[in-house]
Amino acid sequence: MKPLQSFDELAVGQRFTFGSFTLTEAEIIAYAEKFDPQPFHTDPIAARSAPLFGGLVASGLHTMGACFSLILGSGLFREISLGGSEINTKWPAPLRPDEAVAVESIVESLKPSRSRPELGVAVLRHLGTRSRDQQLVIEMAATHFLKR
Amino acid sequence: MKPLQSFDELAVGQRFTFGSFTLTEAEIIAYAEKFDPQPFHTDPIAARSAPLFGGLVASGLHTMGACFSLILGSGLFREISLGGSEINTKWPAPLRPDEAVAVESIVESLKPSRSRPELGVAVLRHLGTRSRDQQLVIEMAATHFLKR
Repeated sequence: MKPLQSFDELAVGQRFTFGSFTLTEAEIIAYAEKFDPQPFHTDPIAARSAPLFGGLVASGLHTMGACFSLILGSGLFREISLGGSEINTKWPAPLRPDEAVAVESIVESLKPSRSRPELGVAVLRHLGTRSRDQQLVIEMAATHFLKR
Repeated sequence: MKPLQSFDELAVGQRFTFGSFTLTEAEIIAYAEKFDPQPFHTDPIAARSAPLFGGLVASGLHTMGACFSLILGSGLFREISLGGSEINTKWPAPLRPDEAVAVESIVESLKPSRSRPELGVAVLRHLGTRSRDQQLVIEMAATHFLKR
């Protein structure tokens, strides 16, 4: 994607789409063994008896990372992303292996920084939607510091 | 740690400590190349001119994962963790390579589920504190579903 050059190019309500990702069973297990070791993320057999999931599901942290991989890998924010301070994340439904997830971001609020005139504070709502049934699987409200 | 056997063993205000972790420069770069590709996470030279950080810092997602690795790897929640639905995360200060971070969790609220009497909903505040100066580097309010 064509990189934005300034925070001031953004407008509230603007929407960006970033394509989709899938996580394989092997990727889900490898991630969770390192960062979220729980049987419903790491053991397909044990996961069958997990009361809420009934099968292997991706770690929510892995889903976050897969979204950010697409969003930041797109290059859209390459020239202006200075960091972030806060993300509120919800996982309304579980994500299973090999399910495609479409990623988009919506500009929720924009506020020039008072203390640092060279940057603005943007809240972006990043959404991951399961393609087979249009079910939201992740929703993040993320505070980004962006160059003006 | 001795695994909890039920949600009902928890009490509001209870605190658990999980030891500490450090992330090496190589680990920070490898994680970010995959899940958070931004120069201040992946390129030590380019990171020097990052306006907010002035050097390489860990991806916030990586810090989350390193905390959960310790918390879940401890075994404390092994018998009762059924999943989660929401995490509100703040990163009040950046984390640089080889800085030790001590991890603890505080029980913030406990609510038996009305719709599913076999589980309870716990909000746990997970904190990561940089050992050298006692600066909080990550704070997560996480909603966990726990077996009763």
